[in-house]
Amino acid sequence: MPKAAPRRDPHWKAFASRRRDPETKREAVLKTAAQLFLEKSYGRTSLNDVAERLNITKPALYHYFRNKEQILLECYRLGCGLIEEILNDIAAHCGTGLEKVEAFIYSYANVMTINFGRCVMRLDDGDLSSEALAEVRNYKRKIDGRLRSFIREGIDDGSITRCDPKIAAFSIAGAVNWICKWYEPEGPLSAEEIATQFARTLTQGLENRNRAATVRERLPDQTTEFPRRGTGVVK
Amino acid sequence: MPKAAPRRDPHWKAFASRRRDPETKREAVLKTAAQLFLEKSYGRTSLNDVAERLNITKPALYHYFRNKEQILLECYRLGCGLIEEILNDIAAHCGTGLEKVEAFIYSYANVMTINFGRCVMRLDDGDLSSEALAEVRNYKRKIDGRLRSFIREGIDDGSITRCDPKIAAFSIAGAVNWICKWYEPEGPLSAEEIATQFARTLTQGLENRNRAATVRERLPDQTTEFPRRGTGVVK
Repeated sequence: MPKAAPRRDPHWKAFASRRRDPETKREAVLKTAAQLFLEKSYGRTSLNDVAERLNITKPALYHYFRNKEQILLECYRLGCGLIEEILNDIAAHCGTGLEKVEAFIYSYANVMTINFGRCVMRLDDGDLSSEALAEVRNYKRKIDGRLRSFIREGIDDGSITRCDPKIAAFSIAGAVNWICKWYEPEGPLSAEEIATQFARTLTQGLENRNRAATVRERLPDQTTEFPRRGTGVVK
Repeated sequence: MPKAAPRRDPHWKAFASRRRDPETKREAVLKTAAQLFLEKSYGRTSLNDVAERLNITKPALYHYFRNKEQILLECYRLGCGLIEEILNDIAAHCGTGLEKVEAFIYSYANVMTINFGRCVMRLDDGDLSSEALAEVRNYKRKIDGRLRSFIREGIDDGSITRCDPKIAAFSIAGAVNWICKWYEPEGPLSAEEIATQFARTLTQGLENRNRAATVRERLPDQTTEFPRRGTGVVK
């Protein structure tokens, strides 16, 4: 029986020419691995699968990453780097605490629709070694801390109703992280539609309805268009 | 070096007496496996681990389940059975669409704080065989369909603002399912606190504020206490 030709994705082309720089090749490994983690799960993907899809040998792959977990950690680093840039942008440019939370949801939802975001959030942390787990928990703790600080800021400036910032942050993070489980890039819902509706419905539950009008009057230059700021970063 | 005594959980006692009925023993296997899936992840747990924790042999374990996936599927069936009972109860007893959604969130959040709920929702579906995946997707589709129908009912009866029921349902399911990733039974937040705040904040984003007052007047017997109905079922 003739053997079926191995499936390849466009990233293998990075290895088809000797002239490509190592950075491009490294990125191709990451993109291909992320795609495989999504197709087969992290646990079921082997370095052999990655090498085969890229049409390179396993030793060639070891030149870029020493094991599967290093690839996954690099995906985490990239995704968290993106989110941190967004968070700094929001902290510097948005108005009330509520507007910051809204901007965060919008931008974070966009990150959850790209492969790096999707493949890392799908993972059961129990599949990680203890060193990797420590690094990943550190990223998560940082992002969670920033979101909680936006919520506390909103409670202080009167834009957000009294609530437990910890539960509120987990509720928002959960809704947004879960996108990785159901979002289909070729599906009927666009990332834009999802991010917009999430930013709207998830913040209305936090809004301090009694004081909302007063706060908006105090900040005439800030509009609800702020959430769209993050888009450029993640596309 | 002396070997450390294997760790046991209280469920091994079900196998310590010959008089226990098979149903009790089967349940002990499930509870122990769920505990291990939470401690080590599904992928890293072996049937040997389960047998060792229960202080029984692997062949004795095969008497109850033929492989690890069968145990996981049984956890799914139990969890989904609980949720279905809750959904029927809500459909029969709650008032407006919005109240039904609120009751659903409250009860479902409670299921996500028990081990069966936590261990199945943590899983990357890619770790399942295609038959198991089909069964699991069927459960998820059913629950998602019921939640969407409550949302549509709310849009029709005027209690829920116009929105895409699919995105709204995914947003709610995500927030609630994510509880499995961060909830700690011994932690500072009780299941009751989490379920109550989730039910409140996640529904306020859906509420049709213009018509909320009118709808409440139309249904004088229905109160916001409905969400508490589900508690008895999941404890």
